Amino acid sequence: MNLAWIGLGRMGMPMARNLLRKGHGVTVFNRTRAKCEELSAAGAAIAPSVAVAGASGRVVATMLADDGALESVCFGAGGLVQSMPRGGVHVSMSTISVALSQRLTEEHAAAGQVYVSAPVFGRPAAAESGTLVVVPAGPPSAVAQLQPLFEAVGSRIFPMGEQPYMANVVKLSGNFMIASAIEAMGEAFALLRKYGVDPQLFLDMLTNTLFAAPVYKIYGSLIVEDTYQPVGFTMPLGLKDVRLALAAAEAAETPLPLASMIRDHMITALAHGNHNADWASVARLAAENAGLPPRQKAAQP
Amino acid sequence: MNLAWIGLGRMGMPMARNLLRKGHGVTVFNRTRAKCEELSAAGAAIAPSVAVAGASGRVVATMLADDGALESVCFGAGGLVQSMPRGGVHVSMSTISVALSQRLTEEHAAAGQVYVSAPVFGRPAAAESGTLVVVPAGPPSAVAQLQPLFEAVGSRIFPMGEQPYMANVVKLSGNFMIASAIEAMGEAFALLRKYGVDPQLFLDMLTNTLFAAPVYKIYGSLIVEDTYQPVGFTMPLGLKDVRLALAAAEAAETPLPLASMIRDHMITALAHGNHNADWASVARLAAENAGLPPRQKAAQP
Amino acid sequence: MNLAWIGLGRMGMPMARNLLRKGHGVTVFNRTRAKCEELSAAGAAIAPSVAVAGASGRVVATMLADDGALESVCFGAGGLVQSMPRGGVHVSMSTISVALSQRLTEEHAAAGQVYVSAPVFGRPAAAESGTLVVVPAGPPSAVAQLQPLFEAVGSRIFPMGEQPYMANVVKLSGNFMIASAIEAMGEAFALLRKYGVDPQLFLDMLTNTLFAAPVYKIYGSLIVEDTYQPVGFTMPLGLKDVRLALAAAEAAETPLPLASMIRDHMITALAHGNHNADWASVARLAAENAGLPPRQKAAQP
Amino acid sequence: MNLAWIGLGRMGMPMARNLLRKGHGVTVFNRTRAKCEELSAAGAAIAPSVAVAGASGRVVATMLADDGALESVCFGAGGLVQSMPRGGVHVSMSTISVALSQRLTEEHAAAGQVYVSAPVFGRPAAAESGTLVVVPAGPPSAVAQLQPLFEAVGSRIFPMGEQPYMANVVKLSGNFMIASAIEAMGEAFALLRKYGVDPQLFLDMLTNTLFAAPVYKIYGSLIVEDTYQPVGFTMPLGLKDVRLALAAAEAAETPLPLASMIRDHMITALAHGNHNADWASVARLAAENAGLPPRQKAAQP
Repeated sequence: MNLAWIGLGRMGMPMARNLLRKGHGVTVFNRTRAKCEELSAAGAAIAPSVAVAGASGRVVATMLADDGALESVCFGAGGLVQSMPRGGVHVSMSTISVALSQRLTEEHAAAGQVYVSAPVFGRPAAAESGTLVVVPAGPPSAVAQLQPLFEAVGSRIFPMGEQPYMANVVKLSGNFMIASAIEAMGEAFALLRKYGVDPQLFLDMLTNTLFAAPVYKIYGSLIVEDTYQPVGFTMPLGLKDVRLALAAAEAAETPLPLASMIRDHMITALAHGNHNADWASVARLAAENAGLPPRQKAAQP
Repeated sequence: MNLAWIGLGRMGMPMARNLLRKGHGVTVFNRTRAKCEELSAAGAAIAPSVAVAGASGRVVATMLADDGALESVCFGAGGLVQSMPRGGVHVSMSTISVALSQRLTEEHAAAGQVYVSAPVFGRPAAAESGTLVVVPAGPPSAVAQLQPLFEAVGSRIFPMGEQPYMANVVKLSGNFMIASAIEAMGEAFALLRKYGVDPQLFLDMLTNTLFAAPVYKIYGSLIVEDTYQPVGFTMPLGLKDVRLALAAAEAAETPLPLASMIRDHMITALAHGNHNADWASVARLAAENAGLPPRQKAAQP
Repeated sequence: MNLAWIGLGRMGMPMARNLLRKGHGVTVFNRTRAKCEELSAAGAAIAPSVAVAGASGRVVATMLADDGALESVCFGAGGLVQSMPRGGVHVSMSTISVALSQRLTEEHAAAGQVYVSAPVFGRPAAAESGTLVVVPAGPPSAVAQLQPLFEAVGSRIFPMGEQPYMANVVKLSGNFMIASAIEAMGEAFALLRKYGVDPQLFLDMLTNTLFAAPVYKIYGSLIVEDTYQPVGFTMPLGLKDVRLALAAAEAAETPLPLASMIRDHMITALAHGNHNADWASVARLAAENAGLPPRQKAAQP
Repeated sequence: MNLAWIGLGRMGMPMARNLLRKGHGVTVFNRTRAKCEELSAAGAAIAPSVAVAGASGRVVATMLADDGALESVCFGAGGLVQSMPRGGVHVSMSTISVALSQRLTEEHAAAGQVYVSAPVFGRPAAAESGTLVVVPAGPPSAVAQLQPLFEAVGSRIFPMGEQPYMANVVKLSGNFMIASAIEAMGEAFALLRKYGVDPQLFLDMLTNTLFAAPVYKIYGSLIVEDTYQPVGFTMPLGLKDVRLALAAAEAAETPLPLASMIRDHMITALAHGNHNADWASVARLAAENAGLPPRQKAAQP
C-alpha cells in the first residue's frame, strides 16, 4: 500500500522503516528534516510539509509524542484535516487523550475523511523488530484497509471496537495496568527487604508460578536491580499517560483510586529530580518511604 | 517419612491424603474427629489429642485456619511445644502472622525443638492434585529433612531463607500481589465498560501479551463475568491476609499504601454484606463506584 | 470609584449591587441582558458588549463561572485584552486555574495593562451581606487602588503577594482545606454511628473545644443532618476546584494525596447521580461505604 | 470524694495533683514508687501495690500509657478486677482500644463492678491547669458519681452515652480529626510554598475566618515554623491512636481511607527516624514529597 507517515521519533522511525522493508510506498514528513533523509536511502519519498504529506494519498499515519504535537499537525491551515482528500483515512498510532481522539473523529468526519485510532504497546526495541502489539479501533472497513500497515509494524493485532476512542481507552488502561504492577512490586519488594528476604527469590517464585508474564519479568528485574538503564519510557511520559487515563475516567465519571495513587507517587519522583529516569523507578519511592538505601551500585569512575 | 498432621480442613485434608498416597506414615489429628476417620481407610493413624500427635514422632505438620487456631494447638498445657520431643521439627504450612512465626521460632527453640514455616500458594483444587507451590524457610537441615513432605503436596518448592518468618513475609507479599492485580483489573474494566469497550477483549489482549500469566487469566475471567463461583477464598480471609501484611509492614516501618487501599475496599465489600463472596469480588466495588450495574446474570430458577 | 463589572450570576449580582450601594459608579455587562436590567434601577449603566465595558474606564472587574467563561471574555476579538485601555486594571474575582491567572498576567502586561487576582471566600449569602473574604494578589499599587472595591464586597481582606497567581493558589488551597474537613467529618461520623454514638454529641464537643470554627459548625451540621439544602455549592463545582488544585500542584511537582482521594470520592458521588447536590454531600459516601442507611428523612408530600 | 489513682506519668501526675488540690482523698499507685512520693507531700496516701489500691475504696481511676499497661493493672492475680470490691467503680481515663474497653466492661460486670471510660483531650499543660476536656461514657449513675473527679481535672465534660466503649470511639475519632487537620495543612502549605506564598499569610487568613479554631492555630504554627518543640505527643503515640481507630473501624466494618493514608505517612516518618518527633511533624512529609527543603533553622550552638 501507499501511505504518508508523519513522525520519525524513537518509535516512528523504526515503524516507518519496517513499512519500507515490507515493500510499501511511504512518503515521510518530520519536523526535523534530517530524520527524513535517513529514510530516503531506504526508499522513502520526502514530503516538504504536512500539507503535501496529507494530500499525497488516501492513507496518512501519524506517530507523534503527545496531544500537542498531533493537534499542530492536524488542525489549522495546512493541517491534515484541511489537506487530506475526501475519503482519506488518518490513522493515529500515538498515545493521545480520549478527548483528542473524539475531536479528531468529528473533525475528519466533517471533512469527509475517516479517522482510526491504532495505538501500540511496546518499547523501541519492539518497534525495531516489528513486534509491536497494535490496538486499532474505528470503522471496520477502514480498519480492514489498514491491516497491511498493522502487520508491517506489529506481530499481534487486537481490534477493540468501532469507535476510535475505544482504542485510546484501551491503550491508557493497558499502561495503567503496567504502572499498577510496578507499584505492587515496589511495595512488596520493600517489605521483603526490610525482613531480609532477597526480592530476586520472590520474583523468581512469582514469575515461575501465578505471575509468569513478561511484565513481571521485565519490570521486576529492573526494580530488583534498582537500575533503570537504558531508559525505555521516561517518568514524565509515564505520568502523562496516567494523567490521560484519569482525565478520561473523570470525563466518564469513573474513579480510579489506584491510578490517583500512582500519579501522586510519580509526581513525588519528579519533585525528587527523576525527570530522566525510567518510569519503573517510581518503585524506588516505596523503598525510600521504608527508609531503605538504594540498591543500585555506584557508577564506576 | 513418618509424621503427625494436624488440621484437616479444605486444604489440610487433600494435603494429608497426598502424603498417604506417596506412602508416608501419617498420624492425624483434627478437632472434628469425623474428618480423621475419613483418612483412616487410606491408612492414617488417628491421634486422640494434640499432645499424642505431638509426642508421636519427630515431625509435626500443621495446616490450620489462622493464628488463633495455631496458637491453641501450640501453646499451653498439652500443646505442641510441651508435647513434642527435643529435636522434633514443627512445620507450619498455614498462612499466619509474621509475629506468630517469630514467637513459634522462639518457643520451639527454648524447648529444644525446630520450627519451620512452609506456607503454600494454591486453591483447594491444587491441594487435591498435589500441585501447590511451597515456600519454606528455616534452618537448612530441617528444610532438607522436610523435602519429601513438600514434594508430596506441591509441585514447586521455593526456599526463601534461614529465618522461618521470611516464608510468612513471602506468603503475605504474594497474596498482596494477587490482590493488587485484582484491584487493577477492577478499575481498568470499570473504565473500559464506561466507554463501551468489552473488557473481555481487553483481557484477551493483556493475557496474550505482557500479562500472559495465570493470575490474570483466572481472576480476570471471574471479574469480566462478574461471577465468583465456586468461592475459592472468601473476602474475610482475603482481608485477614491483607491485614497481616500491613501488620508485618508496620512492625518493620514499611508503608504499603496500595495494601491500605485494598484493605479499605475489602472492608467496604464486607459492610455491603459480601462475607461469603470470593475475595476477587472486591473488583465489583470499582464498577459500583463508577455507577455501573452488575454484569452477573440473574440465576436461573 | 468608577468601574465596569462583568458577570451577574449568583455571586456577581449581589457583589455589583453592593458596589452601587456604596456609591461607586458601575457599568455592567452580562451575557443574559435581563440580569443587567435588574441593576439599572439601582443606578448601573449597561454596556452592550464586553468591548464597550472594557473600554469604559480604567478598572474592570470580572466574576464568572469558570476558566472557559473568563477566557471567552478576555481573549480574541472584542475581548478585554483588546478593548481595555493601556494602564487599565483587570481584577478577576472568579475561582480560576493558576495557569489561566498566569496567562492573563502575561497577556495584559503585553497590552500595557495590569492584571490582579482577587478571588473570594463565601457563599451567596455572604455576597449579599458584603461579608466576603477577599484574597487579592498582584502589583501593590494596583491592589491599593482596588481597596474601595474590595471593601464594598467583603469584610476581610488578606493580600497574598505580588504575583496574581498567588491569590489563586490560596483560593484553591482554601477550598481544599474545606473539602478535607468535610471528608474527615464524613469518616468520623460514619465510625461513630456504627458504634451507636450520636454524631451531634461528637460535633458539639468538637465545636466547643479544639474545632470551634465556622467550617465545622456549618458543614458539620449539614453532614449530621444528612440534608444539604439549600445547595450552596454544587458537587461539580467542588470537583472542579479540587481538579484545579491538583493541576496547579502537578505543574509545581507537588503531590496532594488527600486532594486525590477527595477527587475520587467526588467522582463517585457524581457517578451515583448527585450532580445537583451540595458538595458537602460527598461525606455521605463514607456512610454508604460503611453500609449505613441515609439519615435524611424522606421529604414530606 | 475518696479514690485510688493509678498512673503518674506526664498526664496522670498533674491530674492527681489537681484532685488533691480540690480536697479529694487520693491513694496513689505507680510502678515507679518515686513518683508516688512526689505526691505524698501534697497529701496523697501511697498504696504499695495495685491490689491494695484496688481494695482501698469504691472508686479507682487509671491513667496509663496504653492497652498493655492497663491490661497488666486490671487482669490476673492482684489486678483490679480481682481486688476491687463488688459495687466498686473503675474509671479509665487512658486512650485505649475499643476492644479493651469492651473487655473491661464485661470483666468488671462479671465481678460485680462497674466500668466507666472517660478519656481526655488535652496536652500535659492542660492537665496541669485542670482544663482538660473529659469525655465520659458508661452507666449514668456511675458517671454522675464521678462528676467531682471530672471537674477536678477538666474544664469541659461531654458525656457520650451509656456504653463505655462509646467514649473510646469518640476519643479515637477526635484524634483522627486532629491528624486530618495536620495532614491537610501539610499538603496545602507545601503547595503554597512551591508557588512562593508565605504559608503564615494563608494560616492567618484561615484562622481569622472559616478555620478560626485552636487546632489550626496550634498545629498550624508548628507546621509553618517547621519546629516541633517541645514535643507534646510523639509520632509513635500518634500512630498508635490512628491504628486503634482503624482497628475499631475494621471491627465495625467501616473503611476510613483518610486514616489509612495518615497511618502510611506516619509509618514513613518513623522509617525516616522521627521516633522522638511530635506527631504534627508528619506534615513535613508533604513538603519532602514536593522536594522542599526543611524550613526549620539549624539549632544555634
